[in-house]
Amino acid sequence: MPITPDQQAEIDAARTDQHTTMRATVPGMEAHLYKAHEVLDHGFIRVIDYMGDDNAIVQAARVSYGRGTKAVQNDAGLIRYLMRHWHSTPFEMCEIKLHVKLPVFVARQWIRHRTANVNEYSARYSILDREFYIPAPEHLAAQSKQNHQGRGGVLEGEEAARVLDILWADSNRAYDHYEEMLDQDGQDGLARELARMNLPANIYTQWYWKVDLHNLFHFLRLRADSHAQYEIRVYADAICKVVADWVPHAFAAFEDYRLGGAQFSGKGMDCVRRMIAGEQVDQASSGMSAGEWREFQAVLQG
Amino acid sequence: MPITPDQQAEIDAARTDQHTTMRATVPGMEAHLYKAHEVLDHGFIRVIDYMGDDNAIVQAARVSYGRGTKAVQNDAGLIRYLMRHWHSTPFEMCEIKLHVKLPVFVARQWIRHRTANVNEYSARYSILDREFYIPAPEHLAAQSKQNHQGRGGVLEGEEAARVLDILWADSNRAYDHYEEMLDQDGQDGLARELARMNLPANIYTQWYWKVDLHNLFHFLRLRADSHAQYEIRVYADAICKVVADWVPHAFAAFEDYRLGGAQFSGKGMDCVRRMIAGEQVDQASSGMSAGEWREFQAVLQG
Amino acid sequence: MPITPDQQAEIDAARTDQHTTMRATVPGMEAHLYKAHEVLDHGFIRVIDYMGDDNAIVQAARVSYGRGTKAVQNDAGLIRYLMRHWHSTPFEMCEIKLHVKLPVFVARQWIRHRTANVNEYSARYSILDREFYIPAPEHLAAQSKQNHQGRGGVLEGEEAARVLDILWADSNRAYDHYEEMLDQDGQDGLARELARMNLPANIYTQWYWKVDLHNLFHFLRLRADSHAQYEIRVYADAICKVVADWVPHAFAAFEDYRLGGAQFSGKGMDCVRRMIAGEQVDQASSGMSAGEWREFQAVLQG
Amino acid sequence: MPITPDQQAEIDAARTDQHTTMRATVPGMEAHLYKAHEVLDHGFIRVIDYMGDDNAIVQAARVSYGRGTKAVQNDAGLIRYLMRHWHSTPFEMCEIKLHVKLPVFVARQWIRHRTANVNEYSARYSILDREFYIPAPEHLAAQSKQNHQGRGGVLEGEEAARVLDILWADSNRAYDHYEEMLDQDGQDGLARELARMNLPANIYTQWYWKVDLHNLFHFLRLRADSHAQYEIRVYADAICKVVADWVPHAFAAFEDYRLGGAQFSGKGMDCVRRMIAGEQVDQASSGMSAGEWREFQAVLQG
Repeated sequence: MPITPDQQAEIDAARTDQHTTMRATVPGMEAHLYKAHEVLDHGFIRVIDYMGDDNAIVQAARVSYGRGTKAVQNDAGLIRYLMRHWHSTPFEMCEIKLHVKLPVFVARQWIRHRTANVNEYSARYSILDREFYIPAPEHLAAQSKQNHQGRGGVLEGEEAARVLDILWADSNRAYDHYEEMLDQDGQDGLARELARMNLPANIYTQWYWKVDLHNLFHFLRLRADSHAQYEIRVYADAICKVVADWVPHAFAAFEDYRLGGAQFSGKGMDCVRRMIAGEQVDQASSGMSAGEWREFQAVLQG
Repeated sequence: MPITPDQQAEIDAARTDQHTTMRATVPGMEAHLYKAHEVLDHGFIRVIDYMGDDNAIVQAARVSYGRGTKAVQNDAGLIRYLMRHWHSTPFEMCEIKLHVKLPVFVARQWIRHRTANVNEYSARYSILDREFYIPAPEHLAAQSKQNHQGRGGVLEGEEAARVLDILWADSNRAYDHYEEMLDQDGQDGLARELARMNLPANIYTQWYWKVDLHNLFHFLRLRADSHAQYEIRVYADAICKVVADWVPHAFAAFEDYRLGGAQFSGKGMDCVRRMIAGEQVDQASSGMSAGEWREFQAVLQG
Repeated sequence: MPITPDQQAEIDAARTDQHTTMRATVPGMEAHLYKAHEVLDHGFIRVIDYMGDDNAIVQAARVSYGRGTKAVQNDAGLIRYLMRHWHSTPFEMCEIKLHVKLPVFVARQWIRHRTANVNEYSARYSILDREFYIPAPEHLAAQSKQNHQGRGGVLEGEEAARVLDILWADSNRAYDHYEEMLDQDGQDGLARELARMNLPANIYTQWYWKVDLHNLFHFLRLRADSHAQYEIRVYADAICKVVADWVPHAFAAFEDYRLGGAQFSGKGMDCVRRMIAGEQVDQASSGMSAGEWREFQAVLQG
Repeated sequence: MPITPDQQAEIDAARTDQHTTMRATVPGMEAHLYKAHEVLDHGFIRVIDYMGDDNAIVQAARVSYGRGTKAVQNDAGLIRYLMRHWHSTPFEMCEIKLHVKLPVFVARQWIRHRTANVNEYSARYSILDREFYIPAPEHLAAQSKQNHQGRGGVLEGEEAARVLDILWADSNRAYDHYEEMLDQDGQDGLARELARMNLPANIYTQWYWKVDLHNLFHFLRLRADSHAQYEIRVYADAICKVVADWVPHAFAAFEDYRLGGAQFSGKGMDCVRRMIAGEQVDQASSGMSAGEWREFQAVLQG
């Protein structure tokens, strides 16, 4: 239950507050505004504000290309053209602001995307809540044997139980001690900015995160990808659903060209051409390393 | 007359298009939306969209500082505190999108502010209009004798007339030749991307420019400053008026701390302290160079 | 002749100044340092400084991935892996600083790449030289009939002569008038920041441009591309030659994966798979628009 | 002891590797290269590479301002002028690359400076070492009573002992459990990307951090400030010492104008002027709030 009854009442109140505007407005986004979409055991994403729509992308492209673009193509076609040719600036004309609650180890990955605006809850200034991410049993993955940076099968039985016990007990003990160190009954109480260092990386934090659509697509391409860590991918997936309602043409183009697309090297293109011409190509004749050939085949199989 | 009757009709139409939204809405900005504020002889700025208001700044700060901030201060006081202490991230939570028409030599200065999103009219793709900036007589400034990068008095009489004649004639001849080179009657016509090279830096271009409030304040601090070139300063001044209607508390803080404020070096602070203590300080005893001392005195006199 | 004898003497002097350093040093880049590589009729690029080499990329990747990466792969293989998987941060660990002389209309395209550091010659402060880009006859291209943003055949005969005459005469007249307006014999002289507005977009400017290798590759991918305007592509080509001497493994990977590679949409991948399976696919059965299908076929043909 | 004998041997080896270069070289920085400057109990900063020197700043400014700057001022004076007038781009022409080992809670503050390049040790890919920051007794500060975000006196006696016991025991228990969860003896072993979530914020991480001098000064202004948290300030202080050896003129200007300088609002300047004129000003007549007046007085007292 990431949202308390008090928070829900605040959200409901915000949603009754209607204004009149001449700005571009998207009914699908109005339906999302302020609502919490739950992610993981205590996390969420909430849309706090948005600027622009599919038409704002088209409008910006037409400022660039002048009258010429007006007749030629319909909006969806123009947006597909822009996406296909990496004309990124029109997508930068849309902006979204999210309120996100997420575990600290996810926040540490997320913040590496530098072209966004962030206001994070300050544990120097305030006291964090006792909320920790504990994986659901089906996400308690083993280390991959092949891939240093991946997951293998799911832990089972006693090993799973032991891991969950550790995570649960250590989180709560760390929080008990955090409170004890801060506590001031007859004592000075450790500074908040120091006490927080005892808290583990699965504690939840929260932030406002504001980003333009081009940079959001870049984030989603990397984080909604199957190689991304599950715990950040679920946030990316939740955001994808929102974006599909916000800018449906742009999102459809993004799905086709980025999420669903593939990229080949010069060597890879040689192989593709030879294969289309009917030739049997194997690793030896491909000019690729074993790893690259394995990845190439995986892409071809889809 | 920067706006044609057709364009005015489009603006009027856009302004009749009312929507209902739950987003933060600022009546003062709704009054500006789409309207052209004229700048120079053919330029303008127009607000195309905005996100957030004074309250969005406060809200973002409170996400960072938690419950503590709620009781302590009123909104205006909190915004002043953020501005005074260079806590810039809450100001990044507001965003504005402008449509700007401006001479190319102004655009070249403006674009140096990198943290913004831009879609400029493409002279590779489209044909530019015959519109040139010709200074009004009272802005036909002479080169400053003291300052390599400044203006002195206003040119007068024959010299002024000669300058205006040159600017007028050269601009129009360049444009005539631009059209001639593009013209395809029985000829191939030079590529647009080449023909544009004949056009002078006072031709008008236009762009959509989107920026967050923190970076906008940085732009305005530099460009609404008395040392900025007049031709960009008038754009900054026009934007200042819009921002004052958009986020009145933030703009008041910006005026007091940035536009109206001053900054001293360690040496300067020593002098200030000695002067408050009643000492007479001159350049020799200040430890400053002649130039620095001159600037220091100018700041003290205001 | 972009370089005067005085400038050449300065370059020669700088190249005799040898120092001892423990930093990563690349002999191939030492051979380039300070020398002018001529571009267009008066332009050049010069390497002023560089930081890092192929090994710096590998080293940064190994800080990220820890001991695991040490045994697995050789340096070239690791660099290819990073490029293939868009792991861009290790490439950001290399930095280059160039001195570039270029026409203003090229500078206007170039500056749109925001993630770089720039110091440009200031025409507010100083007086520009009388140097203009005049295309060589073989680059005097006609407007493309198909593509709004492209070039067709080369202009010939009288039309070519007329264009060259215009460019030459207008440039020089504009410069004559620029000097006249600045001139102060018994007059005030127009401020430099105003007089420059009479100068056309083919006048040369210059700047120091400093960028990291990741962002440089992004620039080169867009500007060394066959769709880029010829006048910026020649700069990108000249930089490519330098980069090949600086970080040969990284540049080889960039050539294979970016310059020589191709990208398909989800729809495109479906077609590729069907074609490899021996199916005849045409536009109707591809699910693509006419334009997209044309581009798809062009990519397949290479 | 942040550096193992093996690491020290590697550093010593790197420092024997001498090259010849024509690039700008700073003897003071050569003395720092690769060496570890210890910070906190297990942290360090090391200079891995640098580009440019004081002269590179001057050179870039002269590209901008042209010949005019040559005669007028000496280098130190020009650098002071640039700093005083916030001409930041010449400072961007210098670049430094550091290897930093630091606690995670410090890294989380540090990474908020977005305009830098970072490669961090990946706990998805590799296993972290058992190294935790435990404050020295004299830095075991109590929460400030006045300032939500500050420190008061030092904890003493039993309370101090209890805090140190908690930090020590919890860190080590968390690490024991981290190892147990990863351990694969007859078990699958939890994925590294999950196991890391049990580790507290005082564990050490490391990264390569590359930044230009302008953005480094911005970082140092905020983090070498007395309001910065002690545990990041010691890193900023260590970097300041390196920068003073790298670009002595620029650092001296930074110390005078930024670290040692002060800034006043418009209201503050009114008060300063009245005080210099001999008037007694108190809060009531200052127009400032109580908090602002307190800060104003603190600045005046220095």
